[in-house]
Amino acid sequence: MIPFLDLKSVNQLYRDELITAATRIIDSGWYILGQEVEGFEKEFAEYCGVEHCLGVANGLDALILILRAYKEMGIMEDGDEVIVPANTYIASILAISENGLKPVLVEPDPVTYNLDPTLIEKHITDKTKAILMVHLYGQVTAMDEINSLVQKYGLKIIEDCAQAHGAQYKGQKAGSLGDAAGFSFYPGKNLGALGDAGAVTTSDPELVSVIKALRNYGSHEKYKNLYKGVNSRLDEMQAAFLRVKLRHLDKEILARRQIADIYRSSISNPEVILPEVADENAHVWHLFVVRHRQRDKLARYLNENGVQTVIHYPLAPHKQDAYKELSCLDLPVSEMLHNEVLSLPISPVMSKEDALKVVELVNGFKS
Amino acid sequence: MIPFLDLKSVNQLYRDELITAATRIIDSGWYILGQEVEGFEKEFAEYCGVEHCLGVANGLDALILILRAYKEMGIMEDGDEVIVPANTYIASILAISENGLKPVLVEPDPVTYNLDPTLIEKHITDKTKAILMVHLYGQVTAMDEINSLVQKYGLKIIEDCAQAHGAQYKGQKAGSLGDAAGFSFYPGKNLGALGDAGAVTTSDPELVSVIKALRNYGSHEKYKNLYKGVNSRLDEMQAAFLRVKLRHLDKEILARRQIADIYRSSISNPEVILPEVADENAHVWHLFVVRHRQRDKLARYLNENGVQTVIHYPLAPHKQDAYKELSCLDLPVSEMLHNEVLSLPISPVMSKEDALKVVELVNGFKS
Ligand SMILES: Cc1ncc(COP(=O)(O)O)c(/C=N/[C@@H]2[C@@H](O)[C@@H](OP(=O)(O)OP(=O)(O)OC[C@H]3O[C@@H](n4cc(C)c(=O)[nH]c4=O)C[C@@H]3O)O[C@H](C)[C@H]2O)c1O
Ligand SMILES: Cc1ncc(COP(=O)(O)O)c(/C=N/[C@@H]2[C@@H](O)[C@@H](OP(=O)(O)OP(=O)(O)OC[C@H]3O[C@@H](n4cc(C)c(=O)[nH]c4=O)C[C@@H]3O)O[C@H](C)[C@H]2O)c1O
Repeated sequence: MIPFLDLKSVNQLYRDELITAATRIIDSGWYILGQEVEGFEKEFAEYCGVEHCLGVANGLDALILILRAYKEMGIMEDGDEVIVPANTYIASILAISENGLKPVLVEPDPVTYNLDPTLIEKHITDKTKAILMVHLYGQVTAMDEINSLVQKYGLKIIEDCAQAHGAQYKGQKAGSLGDAAGFSFYPGKNLGALGDAGAVTTSDPELVSVIKALRNYGSHEKYKNLYKGVNSRLDEMQAAFLRVKLRHLDKEILARRQIADIYRSSISNPEVILPEVADENAHVWHLFVVRHRQRDKLARYLNENGVQTVIHYPLAPHKQDAYKELSCLDLPVSEMLHNEVLSLPISPVMSKEDALKVVELVNGFKS
Repeated sequence: MIPFLDLKSVNQLYRDELITAATRIIDSGWYILGQEVEGFEKEFAEYCGVEHCLGVANGLDALILILRAYKEMGIMEDGDEVIVPANTYIASILAISENGLKPVLVEPDPVTYNLDPTLIEKHITDKTKAILMVHLYGQVTAMDEINSLVQKYGLKIIEDCAQAHGAQYKGQKAGSLGDAAGFSFYPGKNLGALGDAGAVTTSDPELVSVIKALRNYGSHEKYKNLYKGVNSRLDEMQAAFLRVKLRHLDKEILARRQIADIYRSSISNPEVILPEVADENAHVWHLFVVRHRQRDKLARYLNENGVQTVIHYPLAPHKQDAYKELSCLDLPVSEMLHNEVLSLPISPVMSKEDALKVVELVNGFKS
């Protein structure tokens, strides 16, 4: 069986470093918001090319806290609108509705799968306060067109970087392209912890100060509470693991790129649509997503032949029971994508041989 | 220096077990909602004498999720009221307001520091849906009087057990005394993880099924979302640590009780008010809290003489900037307590000698 993602083998590469880190934390006697979190925050801010990083409990919380902070700062209020791609992991949309804001779903570009910049302007109203851009599957959203809208309408740009650690747009890293960004370090992500973890990156000092309090019960100073906050902290233990894995991230991205190159140069089944890439540095291949009109049949066939695949995602957010109020939206591109996408195995430990086996099987598939 | 809580030494007692646990998780390749969480949930449910336990990200989230689930179940709605003691860690109150519910602050009994049952009834209105009982400092709230109110008005009883792991009322454990309970496993708690962690205990299967989805993006089945949920999971790593520490909890409670016994039998300064205990099993001595009219002076004096103390808590929730809307409340007992309480060092690793040194100093204090 070729696994979709052999996370066990990925982390075994760093086994000794991870055990050393765990032992250091166990022995330290300090487990919450200490020097490991600070160290990781500093290193990850540097990696992304921003001034600040704040560790939080997970990727969804990172996005929730950014919007919540903007509300505390008076930049948004209940009922305001946030533009978001219609084809994303549901967490992007949950972050908006969790704050009493209205998610305005906009269709993606059917080639990049990212927000279609030409469709944004017609969704902007008096209530629009931000665009939440999801760099889906590992490819950053083209920013130029969006930046001009931002200037025209005074919107905040929030990046959802859960799938795009290290991806670049014109030499700048994801996480530094807007006003603030949310990262997930869910174990399966390109930079994955060994548990739940997340972070906000930004160069806005006011946002930093508000989120620092919000993640810690709203407290800016022990036993004093300025805001009604939550508990959403990055554990010292996970921060220590992330510091280990951050050191290997660029190497792992290159390994993913090699698998992607094999798929892109060798899959030649005319019914299979391959991902298109604007710029090689733009994509970090968190997922390698192909499309096929008979997607379920292709998935079944690959599975029967020993290749594990995943669908990201089978059901569009506006078709989920949780979002009945969005169910009447007409979003044909998103729905088509949800019916056609299939994620092939890709990871830093996948062998060239296994990638070629997948290629051979995909090329041999007849619908 | 006699530390308030020497957590490093506590966890060093279990160093080998903790490192073994961390190594097992690192090697497992599975980090989210796997068999460690399931194992801990089973063991902790058994410990508390309830049918179900659900691991979540922290103690505040445990309380938030219980109320959120009741809202999803149609038991409460925006604007409904929840009765809560006025003298508690602010998290108890945040859990209520986070859900768009109204916290109704009620004065504690000045002897037990827990909710005064005789004051509850006059705060009950048509909108009252629940009582959130905080078993403060480690002592369970006397339940009999509250139970009769519950029957009369059909209220839900939610226990905040963040400070009361293992405490008992008439042979029943905290966490099994109401409809649902929230636990914190913050590192400094009687059962502490090595990072943030929490749990809900209950015997209500519907509540379990809703919270299971809510803690996982609202998803009851992968890629299907029934509710607008959040991300609030107990890490496999922390669950593994908690399984280690749960095995030692009862022994640690006994060690705390020995320190408390020394303080209670030997502190004889007439200006120092000692905690009173209804029943020896009711109190697990998370904190040993004394009162003094010149509390700050006592704290300074102890500190100058090498004894670290903490104030739980210096500022009442209704006096926090975060709760300006509550600032006009008249809560003299709570305010008196916030001015007079002082937590003396107590922990499972504190020596008898150190306890006697604290006693001697306290007895020698003249205000
Ligand atoms: C755009 C966007 N925004 C916000 C978020 C929210 O971030 P979060 O709150 O941190 O989750 C996401 C999250 N995104 C992901 C989402 O894409 C989805 O990812 P997925 O590929 O379905 O994840 P999975 O199937 O659980 O794991 C992938 C593979 O990895 C293997 N695995 C997994 C685990 C956990 C393990 O321990 N060991 C393993 O071997 C099994 C699978 O084959 O579901 C996750 C729960 C989310 O965190 C997002 O994509
Ligand atoms: C009634 C009630 N309901 C809900 C909650 C919310 O639960 P939570 O969301 O899990 O926090 C609480 C939390 N309650 C506690 C609250 O009581 C308070 O506790 P505290 O005694 O002030 O805690 P602390 O000073 O950080 O730690 C106590 C001692 O332990 C040492 N220490 C601490 C840490 C973290 C360490 O790594 N190493 C150490 O050596 C230093 C200190 O001397 O603040 C915490 C952040 C909350 O979790 C509560 O009391």
